[in-house]
Amino acid sequence: MLNEINGGVCAPQGFTAGAVRCGVKASSPKDDTAIILSSVPCAAAAVYTKNRVKAAPLHVTREHLADGTARAIVANSGNANACAPDGMENARREAAAAAKLLGLAESDMVVASTGVIGQRLNIECIEENLHNICLSENGSDAAENAIMTTDTKPKTAAFEFTAGGKSCKIGGICKGSGMIHPNMGTMLAFITTDCAVSSALLHETLLAVVRRSFNRVSVDGDTSTNDMCVVLANGLAGNAEITEKGADWEALKEALETVCISLAKQIAADGEGASRMLTCTVCGAKDEDTAETLAKSVCSSSLLKAAMFGADANWGRVLCAMGYSGAEFDPEAVDVEFLSERGRIPVCQAGRALAFSEEKAKEILLSDSVEILIDVHEGSGEAVAWGCDLTYEYVKINGDYRT
Amino acid sequence: MLNEINGGVCAPQGFTAGAVRCGVKASSPKDDTAIILSSVPCAAAAVYTKNRVKAAPLHVTREHLADGTARAIVANSGNANACAPDGMENARREAAAAAKLLGLAESDMVVASTGVIGQRLNIECIEENLHNICLSENGSDAAENAIMTTDTKPKTAAFEFTAGGKSCKIGGICKGSGMIHPNMGTMLAFITTDCAVSSALLHETLLAVVRRSFNRVSVDGDTSTNDMCVVLANGLAGNAEITEKGADWEALKEALETVCISLAKQIAADGEGASRMLTCTVCGAKDEDTAETLAKSVCSSSLLKAAMFGADANWGRVLCAMGYSGAEFDPEAVDVEFLSERGRIPVCQAGRALAFSEEKAKEILLSDSVEILIDVHEGSGEAVAWGCDLTYEYVKINGDYRT
Repeated sequence: MLNEINGGVCAPQGFTAGAVRCGVKASSPKDDTAIILSSVPCAAAAVYTKNRVKAAPLHVTREHLADGTARAIVANSGNANACAPDGMENARREAAAAAKLLGLAESDMVVASTGVIGQRLNIECIEENLHNICLSENGSDAAENAIMTTDTKPKTAAFEFTAGGKSCKIGGICKGSGMIHPNMGTMLAFITTDCAVSSALLHETLLAVVRRSFNRVSVDGDTSTNDMCVVLANGLAGNAEITEKGADWEALKEALETVCISLAKQIAADGEGASRMLTCTVCGAKDEDTAETLAKSVCSSSLLKAAMFGADANWGRVLCAMGYSGAEFDPEAVDVEFLSERGRIPVCQAGRALAFSEEKAKEILLSDSVEILIDVHEGSGEAVAWGCDLTYEYVKINGDYRT
Repeated sequence: MLNEINGGVCAPQGFTAGAVRCGVKASSPKDDTAIILSSVPCAAAAVYTKNRVKAAPLHVTREHLADGTARAIVANSGNANACAPDGMENARREAAAAAKLLGLAESDMVVASTGVIGQRLNIECIEENLHNICLSENGSDAAENAIMTTDTKPKTAAFEFTAGGKSCKIGGICKGSGMIHPNMGTMLAFITTDCAVSSALLHETLLAVVRRSFNRVSVDGDTSTNDMCVVLANGLAGNAEITEKGADWEALKEALETVCISLAKQIAADGEGASRMLTCTVCGAKDEDTAETLAKSVCSSSLLKAAMFGADANWGRVLCAMGYSGAEFDPEAVDVEFLSERGRIPVCQAGRALAFSEEKAKEILLSDSVEILIDVHEGSGEAVAWGCDLTYEYVKINGDYRT
């Protein structure tokens, strides 16, 4: 059983966090650099973007996590440190500056960046100002705020669960609004837990969970160069270390999945320019992979997203997106219905139009959150994907992002 | 050598065309049904969408072209006859109505539809009104106008070439503005020629040509249910029938490719809501497939397209889109420059930012047509892809397309 709690990444025992304005993006007045620290060593696991172009901090973090342990995370917004001059050197300097401040080894640091691609990171301002950071048990929101870029809402989740008879806590923060079509983690998600777990099992669990959470979100089909999802587990809950699959592992996995799905949905709801969140649920597919491919294709279709912006029940675009997804299904067997808290309306049965009230459909689609339910009547494979509508605002935000 | 000529699909000898308003979309005052007719039998070849959801007329056309011959094309706009009640029956009735009017066998007819998905085609209005059509040697523009939907400009091309010592002509029309990410033909392209060629060789040639023309356009990443590209070759030029590869076939292939690339570029330039056309040229790839994958990924990126709308030289998004394309290349070797009739500006060398004047870059990108040149320095593979920017207008058009 999971209880939702407050505190984000500081909810688990032994974690503090904070943020400071270093001036990475000179024109921005907000905090731009965050630290999350564990008071004791942690089992650590991470997943990274599959984009062939990877930001420098991902390479450095991968090196540092080779031993499966870490103590702290330093992350900046305002510059992605991807395709940037002195990228590797500056990522190392960022980790070193934080390690020095915290009295840790450089290899204990996770380092992450988000922001514009291709410009040199102003590492000097981080080195000069990082010491002004204040870390506290109430610092999760400050850290979250510091890693936001075009995000309009903070994204946080925390839960309490039981493993080995001990109360454990898990919490996460993330950022992500544009360039969101994750293929591993998503643009910066940081998760902490005080549950004791081996780093090998933590990594395996993270891979399974990310597939069903962050990897099922699409805002714009663009897989970022900087996607990274990191979990730190410091073991302070006092449970016997989880090293194999069993009841305790199930509890941890459920908690991790709940945090990741919550964060993933918050990303979809806050997609750049979004006016409404989309959830596409596919059932009856021959297997989960097929259901996933179909659901993600529907949530990624520019045409369907634009129709949802207009609250237009243009279900033909749902079938069209399913059709070009590459997944196998019988178009003549597909049922589609639209659903929101305002009601539900079937629009397609066995691949053919149903007569329906356009007025009622519009009413349902004008909700902040719309679900598209698809049954392909072939098996028991199910999957859910999340996205958002395509709006004028998306175009506006991305027409001149760099200035 | 190719000479550009006028006349569209009526440029080759023996072809007439025309259009009529049947009332397929009751609210639209424009002609909605076109016929293209050859005075003698033609070798015929077609390619169809790879979308698993295929419109009924594609199935009927595929049946009719099984023998490699046809005489005429009937095409309507206003309704796609895809996922529609009575789809197959109505596609057959449309072909039958045209065949009866023209005194042909039903199997001599190509039938095509474009418009909204999922609504029943008003076949009765076509059957009642088709006889009012007027076919003439000047009818190409009328036919083109009748198949347009959200297109803002007619799309036509025609050329003269020599094969077997005879002057041959080839012409084409097409429509396509949204739901454009063709994976075979694109939403309705009709090409005619008076060159004599066997249907088997014509089909093989069309496949090769479509790959380098229509299949390299993307407006919105949505592969339509109705894409179809048809070629009719009636042999009236009097050349010896081309049945194998050689100099005559090279001439025909060059002419067909020139027509298809011209039409494909017209589609990109008239993408829904587009304010500027994009051309992405990749060279130095290890092979053509790799170059094609990279070029198409760049032209399909929502983020890059929005940046081009804003005339923002955000080349990081070019590298990002290359990185998630799935193609193999070394990010550290990539050069990128932007180019238009206003000048050229290198922005990235060996995967790293170059210092450049933002002012000059903006000036170059404010052109109606912008080229992105990419050299990956690995081999001799080259490819060009076409697309357009992502604008407020695209969202507006697709927010409420059905009404």
